[in-house]
Parts: sequence; structure tokens; C-alpha cells
Amino acid sequence: MHNLTIDPDRLWRSIMETAAIGGTPKGGINRLALTDHDRQVRDWLKSACEDLGCTVTVDEVGNMFAVRPGRLDVPPIAVGSHLDTQPTGGKFDGILGVLAGLELLRTLDEAGYETNAPLMLVNWTNEEGSRFSPAMLGSGVHAGVFDRAYADSRTDRQGVTFGEALDEIGYRGPAKVGSTAFGAMFELHIEQGPILEAEEKAIGVVTGVQGMRWYEIALTGREAHTGSTPMSLRRDALVGAARIIGAVEAIARAHPPGVGTVGLVEVGPNSRNVIPGHVFLTVDFRHPDDAALDVMEKALFATVEEAGRASGLEHALRQVWNSPAVAFDPALVDAVRRAADGLGLSWREIVSGAGHDAAYVARIAPTTMVFVPCAGGLSHNEAEATSYEECRAGAQVLLAAVLDHDRRCYGTA
Amino acid sequence: MHNLTIDPDRLWRSIMETAAIGGTPKGGINRLALTDHDRQVRDWLKSACEDLGCTVTVDEVGNMFAVRPGRLDVPPIAVGSHLDTQPTGGKFDGILGVLAGLELLRTLDEAGYETNAPLMLVNWTNEEGSRFSPAMLGSGVHAGVFDRAYADSRTDRQGVTFGEALDEIGYRGPAKVGSTAFGAMFELHIEQGPILEAEEKAIGVVTGVQGMRWYEIALTGREAHTGSTPMSLRRDALVGAARIIGAVEAIARAHPPGVGTVGLVEVGPNSRNVIPGHVFLTVDFRHPDDAALDVMEKALFATVEEAGRASGLEHALRQVWNSPAVAFDPALVDAVRRAADGLGLSWREIVSGAGHDAAYVARIAPTTMVFVPCAGGLSHNEAEATSYEECRAGAQVLLAAVLDHDRRCYGTA
Repeated sequence: MHNLTIDPDRLWRSIMETAAIGGTPKGGINRLALTDHDRQVRDWLKSACEDLGCTVTVDEVGNMFAVRPGRLDVPPIAVGSHLDTQPTGGKFDGILGVLAGLELLRTLDEAGYETNAPLMLVNWTNEEGSRFSPAMLGSGVHAGVFDRAYADSRTDRQGVTFGEALDEIGYRGPAKVGSTAFGAMFELHIEQGPILEAEEKAIGVVTGVQGMRWYEIALTGREAHTGSTPMSLRRDALVGAARIIGAVEAIARAHPPGVGTVGLVEVGPNSRNVIPGHVFLTVDFRHPDDAALDVMEKALFATVEEAGRASGLEHALRQVWNSPAVAFDPALVDAVRRAADGLGLSWREIVSGAGHDAAYVARIAPTTMVFVPCAGGLSHNEAEATSYEECRAGAQVLLAAVLDHDRRCYGTA
Repeated sequence: MHNLTIDPDRLWRSIMETAAIGGTPKGGINRLALTDHDRQVRDWLKSACEDLGCTVTVDEVGNMFAVRPGRLDVPPIAVGSHLDTQPTGGKFDGILGVLAGLELLRTLDEAGYETNAPLMLVNWTNEEGSRFSPAMLGSGVHAGVFDRAYADSRTDRQGVTFGEALDEIGYRGPAKVGSTAFGAMFELHIEQGPILEAEEKAIGVVTGVQGMRWYEIALTGREAHTGSTPMSLRRDALVGAARIIGAVEAIARAHPPGVGTVGLVEVGPNSRNVIPGHVFLTVDFRHPDDAALDVMEKALFATVEEAGRASGLEHALRQVWNSPAVAFDPALVDAVRRAADGLGLSWREIVSGAGHDAAYVARIAPTTMVFVPCAGGLSHNEAEATSYEECRAGAQVLLAAVLDHDRRCYGTA
């Protein structure tokens, strides 16, 4: 039995050092996918891995893979997450998973420890989906959920395509998408919810991910003067949008533990004395039960019809993303549970409320996740906070679970 | 009795020629106040007036005044309106009043007709209020409603101040604000509403302007992850905004013939998988009866309180503009009525639903307006349309009313 321990100071330093790339005055990070800040942090990771003698390859959609060879020529055990953030993101979402993976590589390297299977650190492209919808695009292409042409054609709100942005920062690699097969994948991540903190658990043993669906709605009414257009003759697209925003909230509350959010709204022409002629808005529905999502979706479609009728609007509604509920690999889930027990850390089983690259990878390889708490359950927020001790515990559980799995599959190293 | 007639072809040509300055593919104009397009059209007007031998002066807030001398040294009779537009504005709103005024100067010049009082053509700065709130800023400063420092300090959504933008385009003039006193002011304008067209009247004899109030509301909740934040723990600023948008519509419908509009909404961070933490929105209330506006305002304040409570939001609400109902000068209103009758044009009395520079000028000088129809009552829209014949009728009534007033006040020229 090994007694390798990660270096929590080194892990914390790498988190704080990279947090400066796109860092915001409020202590968060604004590092949207495929921006120059994304390029800088990718360059940082590449050189850190190469310093350890790892080979770094990049695939056609920018996913980065750093391999540390093992004793056997078998598919590698993968760890990692993503380094892109929300426009007002925090220092830990995704980043902890990648940098804890780097810390594993450094710990093994320092100890001269040889695993049976190769170890592979992964940085997935455009996980957040904030600049390019849908989310988890890089891992989705890797898992065959999307094809490469679809990814390349995604556009941001300024009309720049994913492919253009990827070429612009020089991270379109030669590796064919999906050519890097995993024997298993472990993703460490902050919970992004309030449960672990509320129950004072150090570790979340993640058994699956809830189902998620995204929608885009475009409403078209008629621009007109706010002063001289009687209420009865108006076709106000924003009034219709307000009905939909209220209904999304009501639909979610009617289907616990489901959640529903309108996060993005664009009004045209957006002038205080012009009746809005155009509104674009997005809807995000999530529920652990796919059948409940079907019901919520039906209610949304009915709401949009009704809002359009009531305000005399044309409307276009489409589902732009559908990620079914996921159950993680029981053997890997056990490995995480054993690791937490072995380290004497408190834990509970949990279903992820957020989407993660692991949800797609689970379609093509045994996969699971490890959660650590974040203050107030706050994420996608510059105030997002996970402590030094919580990061240390998560990284140590990740290391123990990986080595446990490596031994059980391939014999004691 | 004179029988001067304006040249409708020349008027139409000047409308179409200036429409190219900031012209949009859809046939509208995007010529926000104090942009370079505004500078270009101001230069065009200045040289057109100087070609007629008029003296053009500019005051400290950019209002332009072109004077054609009369027989007597008395305060001039003013005509005019504004040349700035909405971001998706039309070819006639404001523009018709200025270019018809220019057509009057050209007609009198061509005929060698000398009026008793001097004639003054005015182009008011920032009437639309779309780039810099509040609307009618130039005429408001002229009438003493706002002081010059207040105007200079107004900022657009990019943080550029009115003063900076005015200096940038080189239209801060030497004339002290208000130093150019009027004996009277006639403003020709499109109705911007559906009434004249519906009743097939050529001319609107405008007896006054309804009261208007503008408000700004800032809602602050908490940004959080859309997937892992239970509905019960959310503070969603957009859900609160949606309640307010719906209530503004309901309040207006409960107080006919009042109108209420939320025209501008900004969501922060505006990402589809982040619960909105911040929303900024504007409210525009109008009613011919100031007492009704008091009631509507009370209802708005109560709604914002309630929406804030319901969604756990902090809120800031302030009235940013209050323009009481206006009654125009009876003698000038009669002059317009006589002009329409004398020309055999159909007309009706009407209260303006939109705000106009004339509403402020009425506080310091005898003032009235002339309306002509616009197709479908559509305005603040690229499809805004007033016909050649309607423009001709409006300009001819303007000329007849001005000369009628000039004769009645100062004896037959």
C-alpha cells in the first residue's frame, strides 16, 4: 500500500498563479473559451506537463492530453476537467480538477512512482458553453455526441465561429478526435451547490448527473413609439418574454427537485422609448428524471404559444441541447468511496446538479467524479470559494482513487 | 393675402438626401445624437441655411439657430424640430419639421418675401433621449428645465458624457443658452400614432402634449449556477424584472388612455447557465392627466417593492424624468386651424402622445405644433412612412400659419 501524499502548497500555488490569467478585480476569473486568456493558461499547462516529461497532444477541437507512461501498454487512466470560465467565473470551477490532476503527475514524478496503466491529464475545450453553446463541447465531440463540423460551426454572440476562434489561438491540434481512448476517467470538481457544506461533508461521492435541456426562444413583435401607440395596438416582444420568464420559474417549482432558469435575454432595439420589437432568450431546465424533463418541456412549449398569442408575437422555439441523466461506473464510484474512507474523510453520495465533461465521457469509458464543497454553494460567481483544506482533501482522494483503481485492474505496481 | 407655395419636390429631395446620412439597409436612419452622423447632417443644414444668407449660431449645448431677418427688430418666429434619430429610427421623425422649416426659408427667399418678424429655423440637440437620457435635452436646457452642467454630465451606456460627445463633433457653440428668445414657435411633426390615418385627416391641430415620466430600476440578486442551485435558494434578478415588466403593462391598461412601456433591459452577467444577479430596466409612463400619472407611479413603486421581496432582491428605483401635461398657445392653435381651413385640408384636434421640443419651448414662448399622418401610426421604426403629399400639406400649413401669425401680430407685411 502506497503512502503518497500530494503537496497542498504546490497545488494551491498553481491555482493562484493561473487565477491571474483573466483575473478580475473582484477575485474571480473572466476566461471565456478560446480567448487569448484561454490560450495563455493552455500554454502554462502545456509547459508544466512537459517539465514532467509528459507528452502533450492536442486534438482537432483543442482538447489537451498530457500522458505519463505506465508499466503496461494499456489505455490510460484519465484525470482532468476544464480551464475555461464564465464571464464572471470563480477560481475553482473546472480549474481544480485540471490542476489537481497536474499535482498528481507531479507527486508521482517526485516519488518516482510507476503506475501500471499510463496516466493522462485532460483539459477539455469550451466546457462552460458561455461563449459557444452548447456546453461541454470538447468532451462531447470526443465522446461522439457531436461531430467536429458541428463544433466548428458554433458561433458566439458576435458571430465568431468556434473553428475561427480555435485557429486564432493556435490550439487546433493534429490528433483525430476520439483517437485517445481512456481505460477510465476520474474528474475532481467543486460541488457548485450548497449540500456538502450544509451537511459538513468533506467529499461528495458522485453517483451520476441530472438530465439537462437548453432552449432558445426568439420573439418578434413590432417596434413602435412608446408615447403614441395605444396599449391595445401593441405587439410588445418584451411583455411576451416576461410571461415566459415567469412561467419557467413556475414550471421548475412545480417539478421538484427540478430547476429552470432564463439566464440570457437580448432586447431589440433596447431603447427606453421604443416598444421592443425583438427579444431573444434562453431556457435551462434540469431534473434527475428525464421523464420529468419531458413534462417540463411540454409546459414550456405551451407557455411560448400562449405568450405569443397574448401579445401578438411571432415566435421560434428550439431545443439546442439535451443531455440525458447519467449513472456513473459503480466500480469507480466504489474506488472513490474507499479512498475517502481510507483517508478518514467524511463523505456522502450525491447526484450532480451541474453538467460536466464526465457526463459525456461516461458514454464511452468507465467514469466518475469527486466533489468538494464550495462556500455557500456559490459558483459561476467571482466570489466562488473552496478552501486550501478542501482542495487538499479532494486532490488526495483523487490520487488514492486512481491508484486504487490502477492496482485492482492491473495488479499491484 | 399672399399665395406663396412651398416646393414639394425640393422638400422631398432634401428629406431623401439627408436620409442617406446614417441610412440603414431597411430604409431607416441610425443617427444617434452627437455621433459623427449627427455632425454630418448638422454640417449639411448649416451650409444649406448659409446658402440662403441666413446667420447660423450654435449655443453651448449644440442647439442650432438659423435667422432670416424681417422688416422689424422683434423676437423671431421660430420653426424647426430635431435631426437626431433612434437607433432604428425612420426618415421623418423630427427631420420633417427641420427640413420643412428650411423649405419655408427657401420659399420666402425665392419669392423675395419679407416677413415682419425675423424667421428662425431651429435644430434641437438630443431630442430622442435614446443615447443620452432624458429626451428633449437641448430644448429643455433652452427653456430652463435643465441647466447646462446637468446636460454635460449625462452619460450614454458606454460611459461617454454628453459634453465629451458634443466637443468631439465640434458643435459646442459660443451662444449662451436661452440667449435666443422666440416671439413664437411652430413645430411640424409626424403624429407617430394611428389616429389621423384611421380618421383620414390630413392635418392634426395639436392642442397639447400628454404628461410623461421616466424611471430607472436596478435589481440586485445573486449570481449562481443554474444547475445546482435549488429554486428555493435563488435570488434571481430577472425573475423580479419579469414581474415588473408584466405589472407595467397591467398598470397602463388599468388607466386608459395611459400607456406604459419597459423599453430597455440589461441583464448581468447574461449567460445562459448563470442565474442573473443584476438587471437594469427603464419604465416610460404617459397620460394626458398628471393626476393619473401620480396613481400609476404609486402602483409602480409598490410593484417594485413586492417583486424585490418575492425574489429576495435589493432594488433601486428613481424617477429620471417628469414632463407635465402641456397646453399649447390658443392663438397659435387657431392660426394652424385657419391655415388648414384656408388650404381646404381635413383636420382634427389632437393631443400629442409623444414628447416634443415644443413641450418645453411652450414654457417660455407661445408655441404650438402641426401633425401629419404616418403609415400605420408607426414611428421609432425603420419602416416609418409619411407620403410626399402628406409632407407637402404639412409644410404648406406650416408656412400659412407662420405668415398668418406674422401678419396678425405685426400688421400686413
